[in-house]
Amino acid sequence: MTSSTALLTDRYELTMLGAALRDGTAARPSVFELFARRLSGGRRFGVVAGTGRLLSLLRDFRFGEDELRFLRDNHVVDAGTLTYLEDYRFTGSIHGYREGELYFPGSPILTVEGSFADAVVLETLALSVMNHDSAVATAASRMSIAAGERPLSEMGSRRAAEMSAVAAARAAYIAGFSATSNLEAGRRWDIPTMGTAAHSWTLLHDTEEEAFRAQIDSLGTDTTLLVDTYDIREGVNTAIRVAGTELGGVRLDSGDLPTVAAAVRTQLDELGATGTRITVTSDLDEYAIAALAASPVDYYGVGTSVVTGSGYPTAGMVYKLVARQDADGGWVAVAKASTDKGSKGGRKAAFRVLRDGVATSETVVVSDGFEALGSAAEHPDSRPLQVTLVDEGDIDASFEGAAGTAAARAHHLQVREELPVRALALSKSDPAIPTVFLDRD
Amino acid sequence: MTSSTALLTDRYELTMLGAALRDGTAARPSVFELFARRLSGGRRFGVVAGTGRLLSLLRDFRFGEDELRFLRDNHVVDAGTLTYLEDYRFTGSIHGYREGELYFPGSPILTVEGSFADAVVLETLALSVMNHDSAVATAASRMSIAAGERPLSEMGSRRAAEMSAVAAARAAYIAGFSATSNLEAGRRWDIPTMGTAAHSWTLLHDTEEEAFRAQIDSLGTDTTLLVDTYDIREGVNTAIRVAGTELGGVRLDSGDLPTVAAAVRTQLDELGATGTRITVTSDLDEYAIAALAASPVDYYGVGTSVVTGSGYPTAGMVYKLVARQDADGGWVAVAKASTDKGSKGGRKAAFRVLRDGVATSETVVVSDGFEALGSAAEHPDSRPLQVTLVDEGDIDASFEGAAGTAAARAHHLQVREELPVRALALSKSDPAIPTVFLDRD
Repeated sequence: MTSSTALLTDRYELTMLGAALRDGTAARPSVFELFARRLSGGRRFGVVAGTGRLLSLLRDFRFGEDELRFLRDNHVVDAGTLTYLEDYRFTGSIHGYREGELYFPGSPILTVEGSFADAVVLETLALSVMNHDSAVATAASRMSIAAGERPLSEMGSRRAAEMSAVAAARAAYIAGFSATSNLEAGRRWDIPTMGTAAHSWTLLHDTEEEAFRAQIDSLGTDTTLLVDTYDIREGVNTAIRVAGTELGGVRLDSGDLPTVAAAVRTQLDELGATGTRITVTSDLDEYAIAALAASPVDYYGVGTSVVTGSGYPTAGMVYKLVARQDADGGWVAVAKASTDKGSKGGRKAAFRVLRDGVATSETVVVSDGFEALGSAAEHPDSRPLQVTLVDEGDIDASFEGAAGTAAARAHHLQVREELPVRALALSKSDPAIPTVFLDRD
Repeated sequence: MTSSTALLTDRYELTMLGAALRDGTAARPSVFELFARRLSGGRRFGVVAGTGRLLSLLRDFRFGEDELRFLRDNHVVDAGTLTYLEDYRFTGSIHGYREGELYFPGSPILTVEGSFADAVVLETLALSVMNHDSAVATAASRMSIAAGERPLSEMGSRRAAEMSAVAAARAAYIAGFSATSNLEAGRRWDIPTMGTAAHSWTLLHDTEEEAFRAQIDSLGTDTTLLVDTYDIREGVNTAIRVAGTELGGVRLDSGDLPTVAAAVRTQLDELGATGTRITVTSDLDEYAIAALAASPVDYYGVGTSVVTGSGYPTAGMVYKLVARQDADGGWVAVAKASTDKGSKGGRKAAFRVLRDGVATSETVVVSDGFEALGSAAEHPDSRPLQVTLVDEGDIDASFEGAAGTAAARAHHLQVREELPVRALALSKSDPAIPTVFLDRD
């Protein structure tokens, strides 16, 4: 298996490329836009994630001998197209929202410019990465808001496909989680890793006490013991008897968590273990986290709901041609006409308009003709949202890797502060701010 | 990046391993079981998928220099554990359901036997693969039943993370889909690939007619033209004018599909294009497919809903220690005691009991003591469900790759015939057959 990402692509992109090479339209300068028509699930804001991963995958978007052989043997494209693909690398430009940025319906999250040939083949890869990672980050941000100052750990790897799990850990971290249980995510992006113990650990031993003792012998007193394999009250007693009152923490993975957490806190305090922290982990989502706000919980471990976008596993973003040159070199804004899937043609510049530091609208300046697309100067209280990610094929490495991930997290936590208070509610509603399109033709 | 899969693992598995190596329990012969406590979403059956992928990933579950360095530098485990991991490869055995088999609550889908050390570290990888692929396959099988004889194509790559998309294409194929748009899935597992054209293809051109002409010049008359970029009626007229009545097909991606499909069929027939097929693709799920049963549709293209498990993106399977030896070498059946997450200890043998070829129960024989676990002979009308996937570290390659994928698909389509009629309904209900546990202690 090669490391090429070029076949993470829908077949029709390459057959369209083949037809466009044949009729000469492949060279037409084109602008594709990646955006969401709406926010899934009545969410009040979305969180852009995946950008840094996409840029790294774009570096490997090359058709090597193995990829070309598959396309040739399966008659996917003709010989002329194979020759084109042999030398393909993306030489266009991509502008877009910073990773970690908020988005709203119609926000031009990525703008991909190049020849039609350059840009059409990136559709699937770009959407796969951005739809998944943004869905996870959006859910994670809501959880992070609900958790307040209490740290959240992502522990959902087992409920996501093995490579999505790694990406989900990263997206959750960007959106405010503190750590992940996934070791590969730790290796790739320097995300702090954490873990406690499984029920199998206790069951492996003849008694709970032996299991706790062995864990402490190996990991020290500061570890977190899982106390609900048999009887929780007895488990807590055993934990403190074995570890002493300096025990780092206990984990609760079952039962009615507000009730159980309160009882365990009281018990720990009575035993003198006032510094022993309580981690809860049983099927938490943003609503369960919010419901635990008044409970004596120190850490949340979130699994299934965060890695599956808490009911909305894809952000529903699309990748559309919005402008292209005609045969005479004039720009034409384009959009599908059918009524139920309206999208807006034209190249766009986006600004978050603020008043006293609070976001009031997503303003998107649209220009078919590529004249001045508006600038921050025209909007004195606004913040321009787009940065250059790829400049004529040159990928900005600062958005990739561990550094890019850390920067995305910092950016998210910063811009989240601009949200109006109504954006923080968990119930379904309209987007927190309207998207305003300004035509500048 | 290495090709090792060893860090697709939750940190606690390695810290438990470290503690077990220290206290001597790492060597205890152990039995872990992968199973689902219930069927997600009121589904009437589940479909096992992922087994072939898991076996291939297991081949790469080795800790190389890169993995060991990460674990050392981040103080995940101690030096003794690193030494153990350096030589780790799975030397235990795995028995389990064939890929493509149906499952029900409590079905012992995988039984992993080995030392505790051998088996504990596979938890996350096994669950990641099986939970994702089985969720997709279960949704896909319902769609395939709803579609009847009409072929289904999987086109959802853009709505799943880039590597999950490849796995999802495979799972859908196993569960009855005919093809995928995903080229990497075609390369890896010889799954037929397909595609039509995007709206961007039409919008790239100055007129719809030019776009259609170019597509036909490149792909021949047998291609499928997307006719809903502007006005569908005009699009169909243009398509037949350009391609002639031998046009392969048209694709509809918007509107009220039953209405639109009927109108387009009438129009095509009036134009003499009686053999031109209609493909529909707009946000289909099993319910929309069923609702189109009486419409003149020839092919379904399914995206978001199949790759996200149609509302249930994870199968919710768990991986539990069910039996282990004690210090004297006697077997002990184990299970967590807490009331809300009951699981059944002991090693298990599973049979599908049939009457006149129709499944009537999932019979699971449980034995703590490893005496005779029941055999097919005891159940004359039953079919044993478990096969050997890994025999003392030796992985059966026949379940992997393209051949394994094709075998899984054939097996699924065959055993689906055993389902009672009530299992085919799409509404939420109880499992189609009960799971009966027989204790043989």
